Amino acid sequence: MTIRLYDLAGSEDERRFSPFCWRIKMALAHKGLTVDATPWRFTEKDAIGFTEQPRVPVIVDTANSDKAVWDSWDIALYLDKTYPETPLFTENSGEAATYFFKAWAERTLHPGVAKQVLLDVYNHLHDKDRDYFRTTREKVFGMSLEDVVATADDALPAFQASLAPMRATLETYAFLGGATPSFADHIAFGAFAWARAVSEKTLLASDDPVYAWRERMLDQYDGFARGTPGYAV
Amino acid sequence: MTIRLYDLAGSEDERRFSPFCWRIKMALAHKGLTVDATPWRFTEKDAIGFTEQPRVPVIVDTANSDKAVWDSWDIALYLDKTYPETPLFTENSGEAATYFFKAWAERTLHPGVAKQVLLDVYNHLHDKDRDYFRTTREKVFGMSLEDVVATADDALPAFQASLAPMRATLETYAFLGGATPSFADHIAFGAFAWARAVSEKTLLASDDPVYAWRERMLDQYDGFARGTPGYAV
Repeated sequence: MTIRLYDLAGSEDERRFSPFCWRIKMALAHKGLTVDATPWRFTEKDAIGFTEQPRVPVIVDTANSDKAVWDSWDIALYLDKTYPETPLFTENSGEAATYFFKAWAERTLHPGVAKQVLLDVYNHLHDKDRDYFRTTREKVFGMSLEDVVATADDALPAFQASLAPMRATLETYAFLGGATPSFADHIAFGAFAWARAVSEKTLLASDDPVYAWRERMLDQYDGFARGTPGYAV
Repeated sequence: MTIRLYDLAGSEDERRFSPFCWRIKMALAHKGLTVDATPWRFTEKDAIGFTEQPRVPVIVDTANSDKAVWDSWDIALYLDKTYPETPLFTENSGEAATYFFKAWAERTLHPGVAKQVLLDVYNHLHDKDRDYFRTTREKVFGMSLEDVVATADDALPAFQASLAPMRATLETYAFLGGATPSFADHIAFGAFAWARAVSEKTLLASDDPVYAWRERMLDQYDGFARGTPGYAV
C-alpha cells in the first residue's frame, strides 16, 4: 500500500526539481509513508487529467480507495488528517501560521531562487517540455529566461538579505518547526531542493544559519534528499 | 493581584503608542488578566532601572512575588507558562512559527509603519522625551524625522503590497492564529495600534482583508483597543 506521487522530472527520470513536489516528498518522508514517485513532465497533462487541473504534485492514495489529492497545501492537510502520526502541522507550527509562512515563501523565497536558477531549470528539462516552459515562464517574468538570470549575481546579496526572518528563526530554533521539522521546513526546503537539483550556483554562505539548516534538512529522514540527484551546495 | 505594566505614554498619560507594549496589552487582555498600565516615558530609565535595561514593556507580576519580566517575546513566554489558560501560542500558531512572524513583522511591518507615522509619534511625545526620540531615531534612519516621512505617500503602495503574506493568510483565516487570535495577531496589531494612537494617516484601504482583520482586533476583548485614545482608522 503506497502513495503514488506524480513528480516533475527533467530530461533524466531521477532528477526531480519542482519545489512544490519537494514539499510533499519531504512530508511523506516525515511520516514514513511509502511513496511511488512517478516521473512526470509539464506536457503530460493527460496523465493527471483525472484531477481536471494541470499541475503537480498530485497524489493517489492506494491505501485509501485511490483517493486523489492535488495542490501541495491540500495534500499536506489530507496527509495530517488521514495519517495523524508524526504531524506536519505541529504544536510549534500549526496550520494558520504555516499558511503565513507559505505565503511569505511564495512571494520572497521562490522568486529569489527563480532569479538565480531559472535558466538552469530550463537546461535540465526534457526536450518535450522546453517550449512550454520557456513560453509560460517568459510570459510570467515579462522577459527572456536569459534576461531573468542575467543580473542573478547582482541580485544574490538581496536574496540572502530577504531570508532575514528565516535566519532569525533558525538562530533560535533548529528548524522552522522548533526542535523538529514541520511543514514550514518542507516548504522552505522545497525551494532549496529545487535549486540543488539543477544548479551549481552557491546561494548561501557556509556560515549562514540557513546553510546549516539546509544541511540538517538534507540529512533528515535518513538523508533522503541528499541521496537524490543534485549539485554540491 | 494584578500585573503592573510599564507602558510608553505620550504627552497625554492615556495615549499609549508603543507597538511592543501593545503586544503585551493585547496578550494580557487575551488572558483576561488584570493590568495596571503605568504611563512611562523614554527618559524615565530610572523607573525601570531594576531591570538593568532601558526598554519597555516591562511587567511586574504582583501575583508571583513581584517577578519582573521584560522584552515582549519573553513576557509572552512567561505569561503562557505562568497562566496557561487561553494560550498565546496556540495549536494554529505555536512558538517557533510565531517567532518567524515576529521576525517578519519587525523587518517589514514595523519599518513600513514607521515610514508613515514617525513624525506623528514625535508630535505626540511628552516634551521631555522629544530630544531623546529625535536623536536616537535620526541616528537609526540616518536622516531627519521630517525626511523619513517626506516620501510617505509615495511609499504607501509598497507598504500595502508588503502586507501580501498577511493578506493571503487573512483571506483564508479570520486571524493569523486561525479562528481565534494568537500572539501573532497581537504582534501585528501592535504595529497598527501604534499608528492609530498618533496618526490620522490612512494606512489600509477599506476593502483590504487586513483592514477587516484590524477591525476585528479593535473589537476583541470587549473592544479594549477601540476604547483607547487614537484616531479614526
